[in-house]
Amino acid sequence: MVGIIMGSISDLKVMQEAADVIKELGVDYEIDIVSAHRTPIKMVEYAQTARERGIKVIIAGAGGAAHLPGMVASVTTLPVIGVPVKSSNSIDGWDSVLSILQMPSGVPVATVALNGAKNAGILAVQMLGIENPVIAETLAEYKKQLSSKVDDMVTELKKTIQ
Amino acid sequence: MVGIIMGSISDLKVMQEAADVIKELGVDYEIDIVSAHRTPIKMVEYAQTARERGIKVIIAGAGGAAHLPGMVASVTTLPVIGVPVKSSNSIDGWDSVLSILQMPSGVPVATVALNGAKNAGILAVQMLGIENPVIAETLAEYKKQLSSKVDDMVTELKKTIQ
Amino acid sequence: MVGIIMGSISDLKVMQEAADVIKELGVDYEIDIVSAHRTPIKMVEYAQTARERGIKVIIAGAGGAAHLPGMVASVTTLPVIGVPVKSSNSIDGWDSVLSILQMPSGVPVATVALNGAKNAGILAVQMLGIENPVIAETLAEYKKQLSSKVDDMVTELKKTIQ
Amino acid sequence: MVGIIMGSISDLKVMQEAADVIKELGVDYEIDIVSAHRTPIKMVEYAQTARERGIKVIIAGAGGAAHLPGMVASVTTLPVIGVPVKSSNSIDGWDSVLSILQMPSGVPVATVALNGAKNAGILAVQMLGIENPVIAETLAEYKKQLSSKVDDMVTELKKTIQ
Amino acid sequence: MVGIIMGSISDLKVMQEAADVIKELGVDYEIDIVSAHRTPIKMVEYAQTARERGIKVIIAGAGGAAHLPGMVASVTTLPVIGVPVKSSNSIDGWDSVLSILQMPSGVPVATVALNGAKNAGILAVQMLGIENPVIAETLAEYKKQLSSKVDDMVTELKKTIQ
Amino acid sequence: MVGIIMGSISDLKVMQEAADVIKELGVDYEIDIVSAHRTPIKMVEYAQTARERGIKVIIAGAGGAAHLPGMVASVTTLPVIGVPVKSSNSIDGWDSVLSILQMPSGVPVATVALNGAKNAGILAVQMLGIENPVIAETLAEYKKQLSSKVDDMVTELKKTIQ
Amino acid sequence: MVGIIMGSISDLKVMQEAADVIKELGVDYEIDIVSAHRTPIKMVEYAQTARERGIKVIIAGAGGAAHLPGMVASVTTLPVIGVPVKSSNSIDGWDSVLSILQMPSGVPVATVALNGAKNAGILAVQMLGIENPVIAETLAEYKKQLSSKVDDMVTELKKTIQ
Amino acid sequence: MVGIIMGSISDLKVMQEAADVIKELGVDYEIDIVSAHRTPIKMVEYAQTARERGIKVIIAGAGGAAHLPGMVASVTTLPVIGVPVKSSNSIDGWDSVLSILQMPSGVPVATVALNGAKNAGILAVQMLGIENPVIAETLAEYKKQLSSKVDDMVTELKKTIQ
Repeated sequence: MVGIIMGSISDLKVMQEAADVIKELGVDYEIDIVSAHRTPIKMVEYAQTARERGIKVIIAGAGGAAHLPGMVASVTTLPVIGVPVKSSNSIDGWDSVLSILQMPSGVPVATVALNGAKNAGILAVQMLGIENPVIAETLAEYKKQLSSKVDDMVTELKKTIQ
Repeated sequence: MVGIIMGSISDLKVMQEAADVIKELGVDYEIDIVSAHRTPIKMVEYAQTARERGIKVIIAGAGGAAHLPGMVASVTTLPVIGVPVKSSNSIDGWDSVLSILQMPSGVPVATVALNGAKNAGILAVQMLGIENPVIAETLAEYKKQLSSKVDDMVTELKKTIQ
Repeated sequence: MVGIIMGSISDLKVMQEAADVIKELGVDYEIDIVSAHRTPIKMVEYAQTARERGIKVIIAGAGGAAHLPGMVASVTTLPVIGVPVKSSNSIDGWDSVLSILQMPSGVPVATVALNGAKNAGILAVQMLGIENPVIAETLAEYKKQLSSKVDDMVTELKKTIQ
Repeated sequence: MVGIIMGSISDLKVMQEAADVIKELGVDYEIDIVSAHRTPIKMVEYAQTARERGIKVIIAGAGGAAHLPGMVASVTTLPVIGVPVKSSNSIDGWDSVLSILQMPSGVPVATVALNGAKNAGILAVQMLGIENPVIAETLAEYKKQLSSKVDDMVTELKKTIQ
Repeated sequence: MVGIIMGSISDLKVMQEAADVIKELGVDYEIDIVSAHRTPIKMVEYAQTARERGIKVIIAGAGGAAHLPGMVASVTTLPVIGVPVKSSNSIDGWDSVLSILQMPSGVPVATVALNGAKNAGILAVQMLGIENPVIAETLAEYKKQLSSKVDDMVTELKKTIQ
Repeated sequence: MVGIIMGSISDLKVMQEAADVIKELGVDYEIDIVSAHRTPIKMVEYAQTARERGIKVIIAGAGGAAHLPGMVASVTTLPVIGVPVKSSNSIDGWDSVLSILQMPSGVPVATVALNGAKNAGILAVQMLGIENPVIAETLAEYKKQLSSKVDDMVTELKKTIQ
Repeated sequence: MVGIIMGSISDLKVMQEAADVIKELGVDYEIDIVSAHRTPIKMVEYAQTARERGIKVIIAGAGGAAHLPGMVASVTTLPVIGVPVKSSNSIDGWDSVLSILQMPSGVPVATVALNGAKNAGILAVQMLGIENPVIAETLAEYKKQLSSKVDDMVTELKKTIQ
Repeated sequence: MVGIIMGSISDLKVMQEAADVIKELGVDYEIDIVSAHRTPIKMVEYAQTARERGIKVIIAGAGGAAHLPGMVASVTTLPVIGVPVKSSNSIDGWDSVLSILQMPSGVPVATVALNGAKNAGILAVQMLGIENPVIAETLAEYKKQLSSKVDDMVTELKKTIQ
């Protein structure tokens, strides 16, 4: 199961894409709101108990001075994927990108693109697919779909420029 | 008493300046190493017990994805001053500046300039001087010294350009 | 009493949040417009007389080449909190952030996030709560509210994803 | 087995840290030079055959317009970790960070900090530790070491400031 | 013939300008969708066969971690012009600019301005006009038009300020 | 007479170039140290009395949160030229550039390049040469020298590549 | 007379503010469109003849790779004021700011804020007021107005917060 | 023949790489110093007469507010390749990159990486190889060398890690 957390309900419109793609790829997830700055104790507990509760990968999204992914990673040995969210008073997203990406030696966060929750979901499934041939096959199918969507675009392009 | 903490002994060469100016201004301090990412539980305990242990202001210095000041601020109601430290693999210091400055609503960190530990120390003493006339007077003296150092520079300039 | 100043009435929509949270936390404030560049003499007088008029912390908001917080700090020994305001011709807010943050040694400004007036207000109250147990208790209550708002978000999330 | 690749031998001084920490954590790795721009066909073959050759995670390091991690990710369903390397004519590392991080929807790269090869190695091992209790235990031990190194720093600090 | 490619149909609104100006300047072009990340094998084939299919210059547009221009350039000896496209989750366009511009030694991409597809078209025609006097003459005419459009602006200005 | 001021003696190595070129162009100058943050009252007096003391243009150099040029401009109606100085803890010079450049409507500062004190000197002389034919002639001569120095470079180049 | 030029009629909405404030301050101006890139020869002629045609200061506005101010400055000994204009495909205005500001030694451009045409106008008048007491007096009056507008804002503020 | 120009002899250490690779690829070049700001008239003449003098592609390198490539492109219909040079007072190279890259519609400059003179040379030869099979063959050979140099690196790597 993938655990998806975010610092605020306002991040849901971005983070929903992670949940959707994980479901589409046939993997379970749970979703919760855990704030590094407003519920620090809950955050520590969430991370400390994640593995025993059956969470295998954690996806954490946050904006601004985005401490949630890094702090969760400091408490668990599970892989943590960080999604920088471009929030309202963000300085063009640089704050959340750098707060998540530039973790010190010893405590990695797997950072994806700004607002890249969908890729966070795929990446989580890829991790679960390392030794699971069914998931690996689903991912291979998904990759083919990406490619055939480009074929559809080519068809659309041909019509447009006719 | 001012509590000075930092994420690593490598930050000491920057953070020492905070300790020195606080001492110079006649205020007590204690200094410790507390890492948000490597000792998260100790960090929470440090922040939770700070007020009762007699700490009145906390100065926290960190580099890269600098989560220490913000995380400490999430646990205590004492004012927290953040010092962005320009560490070796920093992206020109932008990472630590933005990770400390861009805190979400509800949990402020009083951020000073990159490597600005000396100013962090002065700011801490200014907070203690709000209602303490002796400290306020010391700060007024310090301000005069800043001004007279400029006078010394003018003298030096006159010699240089003679 | 907290003194809130800003360079222009156009900053009021941002700075009002400082006033509101200070009031909510039970502390007095006064609010004024003081421009570093258009009323430099008034600014100097404001800062020189602030302490004797009963001001204990100054919050100064400004945009662009934001000199107000730093210049006020150069004249008073009270702590000065700077709020970078993202004004219309700002270069994404970087100008006001750097003009306020990067103060030289000797003259600190406690800088908060871009448009972070609410946090400036909380920080000012935290400074007053250092030695005032009533204010400290109010802040502890406020922190609990932050946490319970997250609980409300979780409830909302559960409904949304049902 | 973890596959470590880089675009040039000049990246080895950074990427060696990934190899070292993987070995320290008891996991096998292989290391190779594969250039997206100078050996594109070899790169495609490397990625296409990685899973069948027993590679479980790929770590790819590159500088400047760093296309290696993303291009490898476009061909395999294995998780790919990207290490932005600060090369000589880099624009402060921003080019490699953004070229690796900002991948389009559908093709994630797990990006770590600038020159963060050590964290790439730990992250790869974390992925392998999701369902492997021995590796998970090793990682828990590693986390304890991180914490006890901070204790050593505290001892060193106490001596320094005596 | 100029080959125009882009990573997604969503880039067409920008890339159409390249096609339009090439046509206006009397040169043939073909247009296609080729994605570095979703159709990597098609991309390699496109680039490998471009010269024999009569393509003389390739214009490639892409956004975000824009790998298409550089990867095409890695496979062909034809000149490749890269157009950084400002896509929706771009970090202000910096990601596509740097991903295209900062190519390593040996594999150049002729980069134009953000969203500068029109200039990409003109540049492609300039390359074809190096030894073709008819095209060179058309370009000289085009330059005169640029100048006479400024004359029209001056006329408009005179009316406006009357 | 041109008035050259700077915030600290450490800026002299940059600002000396302004003095040198003004002298070379046959114009008088005076040089002083005036700190916006450490001697704010002296700064106001300097600016208020500049015109009556015969100063015709003011050149002000400062680093970091560089308030000196803008604050001087707020008090005088003389043109003020600002020189952003790249000081030691500067964030790559961006702080001083933006603090000087981004002045609000009503109070301009004529900003030159980072460390561009020489150009500040030339610009000051150009202002004095607006209605002074002797100075204008000197500037025309200076422009010719710039050109003939390029000729010397060409000669050097020919030797180098022989 | 002040000469105002810009690269395109689309810059007029910004540059009009320069014309308006110059007129308000009682100084003559002329306004024209001169493009560095589309009418380079006209640009050279404009700059070469400016002084003899009675132009005393040139204000040049341009966006993107803004070469107009610098190129005009390369041909004339009159002071040139550069206005970075934030045009549509600009990278947040950084391109025009840096293209105008970072002139090489020998050829200064007096740069004002992004879209700061009003300040360019005031600066031009300040240059003309160096030795002209009437203009100097007008500028002193203008400064008083700036200050009294702040008084009006204070009145408005008092009403707002009542 | 390829015409290589630069604004100053100090750019030669970067620009020499363009000359060297052009020579290595069997194409003629000439090299000159032409400054947009110090010899604007020579620059216009250079560009106006380039085609008739047998120049087929122009490579122009410049630093800071780098106007040379764009201004040359404004006068000729030959393709112009711009090399941003990281000069001493550059703001990390951003100034030259943006001054060259962000050209307005109608006047393209083919921009290469910061200090990317070698790639500028290869790109120029690629343009000449569009219709010249001998040059095209040389370029194909060069590409193979790039690839075999990676093979050499692999051999070196194997030795290093043995």
